[in-house]
Amino acid sequence: MNKYLSEFNSVETVNERMSAGIDPRLRKVMESLVRHLHAFIRDVELNEAEWFTAIEFLTRTGKICSNERQEFILLSDVLGVSMLVDAINYRRPAGATDNTVLGPFHVAGSPERAMGDSINLDGKGETCLFEGRVLDISGNPIAGASLDVWSDNHDGYYDVQQPGIQPPFNNRGYFRTGPDGRYRFRGIKPVSYPIPHDGPVGQMLKAVGRHPNRPAHVHFLVGADGYERVCTHIFVAGDPYLESDAVFGVKESLVVAFEAIEGADTKWKANFDFVLKAL
Amino acid sequence: MNKYLSEFNSVETVNERMSAGIDPRLRKVMESLVRHLHAFIRDVELNEAEWFTAIEFLTRTGKICSNERQEFILLSDVLGVSMLVDAINYRRPAGATDNTVLGPFHVAGSPERAMGDSINLDGKGETCLFEGRVLDISGNPIAGASLDVWSDNHDGYYDVQQPGIQPPFNNRGYFRTGPDGRYRFRGIKPVSYPIPHDGPVGQMLKAVGRHPNRPAHVHFLVGADGYERVCTHIFVAGDPYLESDAVFGVKESLVVAFEAIEGADTKWKANFDFVLKAL
Ligand SMILES: [Fe+2]
Ligand SMILES: [Fe+2]
Repeated sequence: MNKYLSEFNSVETVNERMSAGIDPRLRKVMESLVRHLHAFIRDVELNEAEWFTAIEFLTRTGKICSNERQEFILLSDVLGVSMLVDAINYRRPAGATDNTVLGPFHVAGSPERAMGDSINLDGKGETCLFEGRVLDISGNPIAGASLDVWSDNHDGYYDVQQPGIQPPFNNRGYFRTGPDGRYRFRGIKPVSYPIPHDGPVGQMLKAVGRHPNRPAHVHFLVGADGYERVCTHIFVAGDPYLESDAVFGVKESLVVAFEAIEGADTKWKANFDFVLKAL
Repeated sequence: MNKYLSEFNSVETVNERMSAGIDPRLRKVMESLVRHLHAFIRDVELNEAEWFTAIEFLTRTGKICSNERQEFILLSDVLGVSMLVDAINYRRPAGATDNTVLGPFHVAGSPERAMGDSINLDGKGETCLFEGRVLDISGNPIAGASLDVWSDNHDGYYDVQQPGIQPPFNNRGYFRTGPDGRYRFRGIKPVSYPIPHDGPVGQMLKAVGRHPNRPAHVHFLVGADGYERVCTHIFVAGDPYLESDAVFGVKESLVVAFEAIEGADTKWKANFDFVLKAL
């Protein structure tokens, strides 16, 4: 047992201070946190000015959080932490659809729509037909699967970012598959957009020479009784930010070729099958 | 160059994203931060609920910060980070007085007082005579050294924590040594006190079974032209929290035997020499 903390015993001294009877998982997480945090400080020999910069950065990050904005999630996203946690928690067998981050713009309670309906309420953007199937890992259609869909508008904003400008639930919808497992709806071809970058996280990105953009994508939450829910996006192949997504959300398997349709009102077509892993 | 982040390439993928021309120190710090942060997450296989608990904890920690309260510094303190940074940045030769944390209660502009004066303005607490010398590493007195002193009151609160209850600058003073390098003033024998523990940091301490108390101490900032400033405390020997300081600030060399004086108005005497390292 170390009485006093020094440069050489700091990890043990802090960790020995926890009581014997505490929750074992909490102990494991805290011990590891202290070990890695101290290793970082020792590794770079953090100086006092840098320490204070970190304190101020964290404080400003907390201060800018509101019901509409979660800057710590944004920080986790741009440091690759959100995607790492996602990867660790959703290891799926080959063939099952990969997960990616939920993002801050999901809204519960999207209106349920009929197959073939449009989710684009303001008529702006290039119309796109989305279709495909929800399947199990053996390729059988899943009936009664739910698809919760959301994307940005033609300007790169979600409806909740522009209340009063976009109609509520613009480019959002909720669908349920029939016995054939098929889905089909109209929306718009999504466009790339920057994450909010007028706060501390944006300043950090600027300091390390990174852009704040995400490649164009449509969000999907796909679930069915007896299957692990998939939280994912489909990305538009050819997007200039595909290989530099500010939040590291892209996976090869989620990049979809959007097919141009000549001379029709619906300009694009995207086809993607979601494959769910049984629970 | 990794295009897409996976569980196995996450550190490189995030770090390769930084631009070539950025400040090299910033690059080094960020690369190490990402490496250690991801190693922590991988080590404990952090789950989504735990990740969200962390996001909420950091958000609440930011929200409670104000001009009077810095909860992120408190968090740094209780995780041993503040003392580790202090230890790394103030490696002193044997014989020089050790540093310890500044703490949140320093106030610039303490009134300058004459040697022998009392800094205890409200007359509460057990009077103590503090005396000693400011010396260089060879034992020569340093003339014109400044001592900025502050301690809590008999109830364990600093004046700034109780505006309207304690007089301003209660138990604070600023002194300057003469040619003999000696200092001498009256104050009170300090008492142990808890760090603010009604916020997220207090909740964390409770969850890991740690108390929030600091052993009794008096703060000193001691400086002189041509010498490295010492930011330190002297601790009262025998205090029950000496070996479990909530912020890990104690060093063996800073523990002082407070000598009881029988039958006098001044009940205690503490003697300590500050030894400064030349710049
Ligand atoms: Fe998005
Ligand atoms: Fe203190």
